Amino acid sequence: MGLVIIAMIAWSGTAGAESAPLSEATEACLECHASVTPGIVEDWKKSRHFLVSPAEALKKEEIERRISAESIPSETASFAVGCAECHLLNPESHKDTFEHEGENVHIVVSPADCAKCHPKEAAQYNDNKMAWAYPNLMNNELYGKLRESINGQYSYKAGVLSNNGVPAGEDELACLSCHGTEVKVTGVETRETDYGDFDIPVLSGWPNQGVGRINPDGSRGSCTSCHTRHQFSIKTARKPYTCAQCHKGPDVPAYKIYSVSKHGGLFASHQDEWNFSKAAWTVGEDFTAPTCATCHVSLLVDKEGEVIAERTHRMNDRLPWRLFGLVYSHPQPVSPDTSRIRNSDGIPLPTGFDGKYAAEYLISREEMENRAETMKGVCQACHSRSWVDGHWDLFEKSLKSSDAGVMSATNIIGEAWKTGLVKGPAENGSPFDEPLEKKWIEQWLFYANSMRLAAAMGGADYGVFEGGRWNASKNLVDMAERLELYKKLNKKDDSAKKRD
Amino acid sequence: MGLVIIAMIAWSGTAGAESAPLSEATEACLECHASVTPGIVEDWKKSRHFLVSPAEALKKEEIERRISAESIPSETASFAVGCAECHLLNPESHKDTFEHEGENVHIVVSPADCAKCHPKEAAQYNDNKMAWAYPNLMNNELYGKLRESINGQYSYKAGVLSNNGVPAGEDELACLSCHGTEVKVTGVETRETDYGDFDIPVLSGWPNQGVGRINPDGSRGSCTSCHTRHQFSIKTARKPYTCAQCHKGPDVPAYKIYSVSKHGGLFASHQDEWNFSKAAWTVGEDFTAPTCATCHVSLLVDKEGEVIAERTHRMNDRLPWRLFGLVYSHPQPVSPDTSRIRNSDGIPLPTGFDGKYAAEYLISREEMENRAETMKGVCQACHSRSWVDGHWDLFEKSLKSSDAGVMSATNIIGEAWKTGLVKGPAENGSPFDEPLEKKWIEQWLFYANSMRLAAAMGGADYGVFEGGRWNASKNLVDMAERLELYKKLNKKDDSAKKRD
Amino acid sequence: MGLVIIAMIAWSGTAGAESAPLSEATEACLECHASVTPGIVEDWKKSRHFLVSPAEALKKEEIERRISAESIPSETASFAVGCAECHLLNPESHKDTFEHEGENVHIVVSPADCAKCHPKEAAQYNDNKMAWAYPNLMNNELYGKLRESINGQYSYKAGVLSNNGVPAGEDELACLSCHGTEVKVTGVETRETDYGDFDIPVLSGWPNQGVGRINPDGSRGSCTSCHTRHQFSIKTARKPYTCAQCHKGPDVPAYKIYSVSKHGGLFASHQDEWNFSKAAWTVGEDFTAPTCATCHVSLLVDKEGEVIAERTHRMNDRLPWRLFGLVYSHPQPVSPDTSRIRNSDGIPLPTGFDGKYAAEYLISREEMENRAETMKGVCQACHSRSWVDGHWDLFEKSLKSSDAGVMSATNIIGEAWKTGLVKGPAENGSPFDEPLEKKWIEQWLFYANSMRLAAAMGGADYGVFEGGRWNASKNLVDMAERLELYKKLNKKDDSAKKRD
Repeated sequence: MGLVIIAMIAWSGTAGAESAPLSEATEACLECHASVTPGIVEDWKKSRHFLVSPAEALKKEEIERRISAESIPSETASFAVGCAECHLLNPESHKDTFEHEGENVHIVVSPADCAKCHPKEAAQYNDNKMAWAYPNLMNNELYGKLRESINGQYSYKAGVLSNNGVPAGEDELACLSCHGTEVKVTGVETRETDYGDFDIPVLSGWPNQGVGRINPDGSRGSCTSCHTRHQFSIKTARKPYTCAQCHKGPDVPAYKIYSVSKHGGLFASHQDEWNFSKAAWTVGEDFTAPTCATCHVSLLVDKEGEVIAERTHRMNDRLPWRLFGLVYSHPQPVSPDTSRIRNSDGIPLPTGFDGKYAAEYLISREEMENRAETMKGVCQACHSRSWVDGHWDLFEKSLKSSDAGVMSATNIIGEAWKTGLVKGPAENGSPFDEPLEKKWIEQWLFYANSMRLAAAMGGADYGVFEGGRWNASKNLVDMAERLELYKKLNKKDDSAKKRD
Repeated sequence: MGLVIIAMIAWSGTAGAESAPLSEATEACLECHASVTPGIVEDWKKSRHFLVSPAEALKKEEIERRISAESIPSETASFAVGCAECHLLNPESHKDTFEHEGENVHIVVSPADCAKCHPKEAAQYNDNKMAWAYPNLMNNELYGKLRESINGQYSYKAGVLSNNGVPAGEDELACLSCHGTEVKVTGVETRETDYGDFDIPVLSGWPNQGVGRINPDGSRGSCTSCHTRHQFSIKTARKPYTCAQCHKGPDVPAYKIYSVSKHGGLFASHQDEWNFSKAAWTVGEDFTAPTCATCHVSLLVDKEGEVIAERTHRMNDRLPWRLFGLVYSHPQPVSPDTSRIRNSDGIPLPTGFDGKYAAEYLISREEMENRAETMKGVCQACHSRSWVDGHWDLFEKSLKSSDAGVMSATNIIGEAWKTGLVKGPAENGSPFDEPLEKKWIEQWLFYANSMRLAAAMGGADYGVFEGGRWNASKNLVDMAERLELYKKLNKKDDSAKKRD
Repeated sequence: MGLVIIAMIAWSGTAGAESAPLSEATEACLECHASVTPGIVEDWKKSRHFLVSPAEALKKEEIERRISAESIPSETASFAVGCAECHLLNPESHKDTFEHEGENVHIVVSPADCAKCHPKEAAQYNDNKMAWAYPNLMNNELYGKLRESINGQYSYKAGVLSNNGVPAGEDELACLSCHGTEVKVTGVETRETDYGDFDIPVLSGWPNQGVGRINPDGSRGSCTSCHTRHQFSIKTARKPYTCAQCHKGPDVPAYKIYSVSKHGGLFASHQDEWNFSKAAWTVGEDFTAPTCATCHVSLLVDKEGEVIAERTHRMNDRLPWRLFGLVYSHPQPVSPDTSRIRNSDGIPLPTGFDGKYAAEYLISREEMENRAETMKGVCQACHSRSWVDGHWDLFEKSLKSSDAGVMSATNIIGEAWKTGLVKGPAENGSPFDEPLEKKWIEQWLFYANSMRLAAAMGGADYGVFEGGRWNASKNLVDMAERLELYKKLNKKDDSAKKRD
């Protein structure tokens, strides 16, 4: 008890007059947690949640509001958004709720909790491919074969390399790190602490902050992927470093490309003069070049307050094309649940190997044009229409050229499968596990994606020597030569056999 | 008309007393463009062009001046440098000039326009390899083969991979993104806008901001490559992110190497304390470690105002060696127009395959020493002479070792060509399109360049595992093994044929 | 003499009242060096060494002190730490001491010099693998073979690729750039300057700032590797860019992984709000996410001044595991001198090829647990215990999976050696110089390291497509196929021979 008292005193000393009033429940949390997890508490004290109560926030002009609820129940609206305001919400729906110091606390705050004040954002986000990133990967049988070929445990014995399946933890450490895990309560453990013994739920798939996390309350996603706890700052989400967490590898080199683009260079050079916290975000005044959020998410206005683009957390509202080749570029899917898509061969892919769209699952030409116009509206805040049209035309040319490169690679692997030199789907082989197949994958997953993203953002060398056309063209001649070698050696085997 | 009035009011409300006087013509532009392209206008309002008239700028001490004209015609000198001051300049020489609201406006502001106030910089830049980056690439027949092998469209049919040539847009998306396009007027289109219909020139090769852009007035280059519009800030140009736009890929990993060098680490850690806007730039006071601009461009002084290095926009004034291997390192070329160079075999390369310099096209040993001394003078602001000499000696050793590695690779590919196992120049084949040739290219274009730049800047792993000696040595043993394999298979073909 | 007077005046004009008193000897240095090396002097004038005398520094509360000496001899303690206070220290032990303007000056200030005020840090650092990085690499015969295969000079003649040994400068440009050189005095040269002729020692292995530099006084390491001269700022050392100098390549992609981790994203987005200069460093208040220094080095306190972790310059005090695979992950070595280690086959490696630890040279399970607890204590400042345990469990799973992948690669290369298809150690061949061996090296040196570091820091794609599981699995199937090819071709050779 002595320790608790000390902690309470400590806390009293630091809670400044500048905060919104703290609820009794939150004060109780802080009595211990200011000492137990001081980093969390100090971080939160820098947040808007600490400074401004929802009731105060609702008094702002609608365009300046960061909360989208029309009203907040009065019993909580006048307090700062503290520990209790989130971790005690909706206790009955949370399987990770546990009794803790007299309260029903849950560990994993979910989008369904955040929706109390931010319902529009939560709803939009749930309509987002990112919210579905877990099932979109894990429920797609084809992608499962790719995942297993990457995360599986290999052994080599007597001249044979075998994949013995994915060991525990490997999916979580790899794909699900970004895609999100399924967080489940697997038991309860008693933890001895300086403050006494506590029974605390044991979670599997935890910790994780992936964008498509399945939470213990059944909700999808993790707001803290981008609005990182416990400051939940709009500044964090508007900086490209946040997107870079998942969008930097060779499969989606978006951040890398941005960072060498004109926009990214201006951001890096001048961000110290920008205002990353203002809502709505004023073009030219608050920033002089876009970050990821500018083009894809933020509510943008001009200096007179005219809206240039509405805020959206359904990230593809401004995107007609899906650049991420599977295996070709294609119109955005209609539903965020992409695991339902089947191409004309019945394969869960948005295009055929011949490039034909699985059209019924993809947005219409008209919808594509609407989305393109929304995006171009953002560009036109700083660029003339002829500039924007010229850029867009080049960008769409890159889709054609990158798709054509992938088609050549697909034709090579197709011939390898047909001749049986590589064991393909027709022979019940994984299309992803042999050396030539790996090269085919890199053609669409790495090089074509890089070419397209470089065209979209003006990313210079990522379209050429850094994962772009150089790599694509080199890979193609290598693939052709490798297939030639297979043929030669196989023929020799045959002719050798004949002679033996 | 109503809209125009609203826009004008909007503008009146925002133009602060802090600007230099605006010309009537610029006021007229702003009436609409403050609303139409608010990002451009707000960005410009943060510029020195907005704040200080040329007449005021000319009153500064010469060493502090950012304009190099001795005088500016009085009719324009007293106004802020606004829309009209640049976009109405030299209308007769611009093929992209069009009548717009009673003025002869052109779209692409060129170095010839900037030269009105910045004549020395424009002239120096025109003497720069970068200003010639378009013809240096596009008029060199040999480089053309490399470009086609990278940007060409491949198809694979009946076991044969064919390159069907470079489709429209591909050069622009790839090489010309940095090298610059040729911007041409291809027609006129009528554009419907909220302000009425306008006839606007249609441009090909646009948008583009490459360093060697050929502008519609025939001038070379794009000042906004580095002094990005419409803030045109010296701060932008002095930050390394700007150079990174083109100098980051594996062919010229300069930015990457800088960023892990001691200098780059200090820049990243302490840039918040530095003054990136002061001219002249004071060593130790305004900054405590160099950026790209410090060593290659800027006017540097010590605290007493003593000049350490003169400003230059001919970037190789301080560079004796050209590190970019073609295929070996060599003295800088005499002329920025490198397409004229021929080696002793008549090939448009600054060295022979045997490493011999195309000496008549390259600067003399004496000129190299002068340039080296200028560069060392910059180093000595912070380093003792023995430090600098030791560094330089190591750097020049890296040229020898990287060139020797390239020589081994050239000998391998030479043998492959001689034996006909790879179709080389003697058989009228492209030297750049087969798998073994691609590996040879990476030896000089990637690994040797990385080793040299890492030595120049102290770039640690870029000289070893990150594209350096590890990759160079691995590539060599792979090349040798691949050639061995070709020989073996070919011999087998022969012996199999004999026996058949 | 005239020049000297001018310089003196210049200096008098700039030395502000804000400095600690300057010693007469330092004043004398500045008379010339303020002009000769203005960057050094201005940089130093921004340092704490300039502002605060050791005597003043000793008056601080112990927890706030940056110096660890209990007392400083009074004759020097009251002066600013200037040129003379370091470069004249311990003249008799420095082989690079030379007579200069009446003083015994040495060039290379060493940890033994810094130890006058910072003895604990110097002692801890000397117990650090980094301090031993030179002998750990250069005295290990096995590593020598790797070094030679990378830095050696290759030539190709008559179908044979030969390694002709490591030319002068190559080790310095490559491995020793980070590991540190041995700095030796090789002679004296007379240098003509504007201030007269000076006899100055000539040094080999200079310049260098590697972490394991052997200094002319026999001491190990270079404090300026991280506390870069002449500002010696704790801010520099606390920013991750400093660590990135050596920890960014594919062998130790720590910085890259950090930069896409949640921690790195927060650092990049919010560092402008943080205090990088305060000692002790207060969690949550001075920073809201860790940098490299936070977890591995810094003295951390909470807002009440409670110590969360003690400062250490023996970087592995908080590290149970050594992630850097040689060839498998293993417990940290007991001694920083790893060249003594022998595995059960007598090879200087901390594990056998079968993965068995060279246990007597490695820390005990108990010591590992102690170190893990220290590290987890840092995590718990911001994360709950169940979060931390979950993270740690996943991290240790990554060690198993990455080691298993390496084991498969080792089994492939082992078979290649056994069959003689690749010339291995048993045949007195280097295990590092053939193409298949290079692929084996990349399995442990690149991909396994990346997987482990990504698990340790939450580094997303560095565990998958960016050097992680994708690359590891692709490399394995490539290795198996390559060995198969060797077998096939060899068999054909045999059968061809039989028939001939």
